[in-house]
Amino acid sequence: MKKITIVGAGLAGSLLSVYLAKKGFEVNVYERRSDMRKSSKGGGKSINLALSTRGIHALKEVGLYDEIKKIAIPMYGRMIHPVEGDLSFQRYGKDDSEYINAVSRADLNISLMELAERNPGVKIHFNERCSGIDFKNSEINFHNELTGETTLVKSDIVIATDGATSAVRMEMQKIPRFNFAQHYENYGYKELIIPSGEDGSFLMEKNALHIWPRGSFMLIALPNPDGSYTCTLFLAYDHSLGEENSFEYLNTEERADTFFKKQFPDAYKMIPEFKKEFFNNPTGTLMTVKCFPWIYEDRIALLGDACHAIVPFFGQGMNAAFEDCTCLNDCIDKYGTDWKKVFNEYQKQRKINSDAIADLAQENFIEMRDLVSDKEFLFRKKIETELYKKYPDTFIPKYSMVTFSRIPYSVALQRGKIQEEILKELCAEADSRESIDYGKAEKLINNRLEKLL
Amino acid sequence: MKKITIVGAGLAGSLLSVYLAKKGFEVNVYERRSDMRKSSKGGGKSINLALSTRGIHALKEVGLYDEIKKIAIPMYGRMIHPVEGDLSFQRYGKDDSEYINAVSRADLNISLMELAERNPGVKIHFNERCSGIDFKNSEINFHNELTGETTLVKSDIVIATDGATSAVRMEMQKIPRFNFAQHYENYGYKELIIPSGEDGSFLMEKNALHIWPRGSFMLIALPNPDGSYTCTLFLAYDHSLGEENSFEYLNTEERADTFFKKQFPDAYKMIPEFKKEFFNNPTGTLMTVKCFPWIYEDRIALLGDACHAIVPFFGQGMNAAFEDCTCLNDCIDKYGTDWKKVFNEYQKQRKINSDAIADLAQENFIEMRDLVSDKEFLFRKKIETELYKKYPDTFIPKYSMVTFSRIPYSVALQRGKIQEEILKELCAEADSRESIDYGKAEKLINNRLEKLL
Repeated sequence: MKKITIVGAGLAGSLLSVYLAKKGFEVNVYERRSDMRKSSKGGGKSINLALSTRGIHALKEVGLYDEIKKIAIPMYGRMIHPVEGDLSFQRYGKDDSEYINAVSRADLNISLMELAERNPGVKIHFNERCSGIDFKNSEINFHNELTGETTLVKSDIVIATDGATSAVRMEMQKIPRFNFAQHYENYGYKELIIPSGEDGSFLMEKNALHIWPRGSFMLIALPNPDGSYTCTLFLAYDHSLGEENSFEYLNTEERADTFFKKQFPDAYKMIPEFKKEFFNNPTGTLMTVKCFPWIYEDRIALLGDACHAIVPFFGQGMNAAFEDCTCLNDCIDKYGTDWKKVFNEYQKQRKINSDAIADLAQENFIEMRDLVSDKEFLFRKKIETELYKKYPDTFIPKYSMVTFSRIPYSVALQRGKIQEEILKELCAEADSRESIDYGKAEKLINNRLEKLL
Repeated sequence: MKKITIVGAGLAGSLLSVYLAKKGFEVNVYERRSDMRKSSKGGGKSINLALSTRGIHALKEVGLYDEIKKIAIPMYGRMIHPVEGDLSFQRYGKDDSEYINAVSRADLNISLMELAERNPGVKIHFNERCSGIDFKNSEINFHNELTGETTLVKSDIVIATDGATSAVRMEMQKIPRFNFAQHYENYGYKELIIPSGEDGSFLMEKNALHIWPRGSFMLIALPNPDGSYTCTLFLAYDHSLGEENSFEYLNTEERADTFFKKQFPDAYKMIPEFKKEFFNNPTGTLMTVKCFPWIYEDRIALLGDACHAIVPFFGQGMNAAFEDCTCLNDCIDKYGTDWKKVFNEYQKQRKINSDAIADLAQENFIEMRDLVSDKEFLFRKKIETELYKKYPDTFIPKYSMVTFSRIPYSVALQRGKIQEEILKELCAEADSRESIDYGKAEKLINNRLEKLL
């Protein structure tokens, strides 16, 4: 049986090690950071995640979903917080059976590592930084961050799950004809905490993803099991037009405080340590990574953020990486250890869909920060829901295709665009803001959508 | 006076060292390769280049143009070689005063290095590979490829001119919010030699750039002073549709020979060593690099291919890099040693123009390999020349703006697009393939172009 090296024991690497161990491979996982079970959690990334259908499918395949379900909080929709006025709730799915799950990145990662290590075929090595790779001979140098020692690891197969700033990919970039792009948004994010109320009670609706849409920026909040919420402020770094809504401008406690109090009055009251957190917490970056090829001959492959980091606005980064693992596992089912075929098929299936979710995630930022409080948009959403009820197999809202199904992302992107056109056409022609021409709707749906799924 | 380190003694680095030495700076240039004056020439890159107005302007500024003029061969236009039938000549400029210059990369580089070293302020260190950089402290490690020794070089200012695969840029990529993209065409190139005739005579027209346009691929040839021509075959690596016109398909001597004989019958007769050269010469790649920012605080800057490698189809790679040097020199004239201002102004002026020439170069590939033998295109070219004669200050052909002027590339791109629209409109309405409505032409030119230059 071939010896497999996985670079990175984050969410994707840990899950992948379980999939591969279940197939009987000997798997060594090398992780740059220290064991998060023994030291601080998180490693600089966002604290909680939205687990949805694609991720759940993978967790079910490795037998971990029942355990994760216990620590996950269902979120049935968006709770919109305007500057003034009442909150409004926008359901994500068709009913309470469709929801996304707030889950702690650290808890999920730890569960996956523990599951992996229960397998005798898996060993996780911590504090091991990839410091060089010889593609021709599948040899990797790992530099131990504690001892300073360097180990040369030779294996048959290497899979790099070392994230958006992947060291393996960076070496791959030197190989001729490797296409690569890393693009940073002019937006950063800042995490802030709304603590729980007395006795661990939730200060807002527990089972919702809270959004404060403000056009060019937004605040969101996800619930944690202890009654607190992790808020994330998404804000431009700077504005070429000299606007004040930017991290650059909010460089004094007074400015930050004034801004936050004015824009998010209800949230402001619930964040007692606002000024401290705003200036002590780091400002995170938002990057999209695209590259091709993802594989080197029949020996080395990239997976997850290492080859397709995306912005977080569709909550699909982890779900997409987990779907990579599911796909690779399916390819091994199909082609056994003919790794050339396995890797080629994996790359063929996943590259197109990763490109699609990257675009979908960028689109969704505009929807979240701006459109969710727009009247035209809300009317279209209402009609979308009605059409979905009438044509549940044909007219599936883009959000549902991405979040509550395993329809390939590329299909969701393509059908989503067509549906958007249909909705715009129908809503523009609607006499009132109440209803549309359903006869025409049926014709448009039949003509433009039927054949695609 | 501040100490400046230049990484890379290629065309851009050598020229820049002269510009800076003339301003009185102490300049150390570190070059990865050995001294090309003592060993083999070229270093894997294409053998000859097309020097035009922007490059000439820079060479004049440093006082080297008269010397280079002696070794350059004027090319007044394109000589088109169809598969069958007569050759046709397409002039580049308005008359014999406008031409591009075939010049040997190695000879030009050597002249620049010699000019640099005549300056007591400049020292070029060979065989020194940049193996790491500390941006905060402007410290670079150079690894000597001969002795194996590593030297730590600290300087006030670092300018990286280390080419398309820049080591400095690769380190810069790790800095948050550094945007980067490297894109390879699905085309490679292969150099082949047409030797001189008896007594060093030229076997084809000497003062032309020869093109064999074939739609999806092409051959070109530039004259050398010894009577030979350097030919370059541009061909797809592979074809998803399984076509035969690809390097992948031409994997046997018989296939390559049959292909070349059929497609380029006149060239085939002039390349005696075709099979040997086709299989012994490497296949070069074609890459476009874009990144931002180009600078790190007031200490480090990228210049030339290191920040904007482009495809060679407009013959502007070197010319654009030389224009970077001219611009940086102008910025120093303006801001002295306020390097923050110097670098910011340099970046502001050059980034937009580098993006433009990258697009222009990709467009020109289609023109060269396909359109130059298209009848509609030739009619538009004819009308373009006529309009240029009538409105020499307003309607300047895109090729002329790029090649025979120092109009910013971004302006050339923008005006080129408008002119193309005007030409298409006028030519589509032309009664015959003979002439157009000049009254309408004047109106269109006045309305759409007047205000832009």
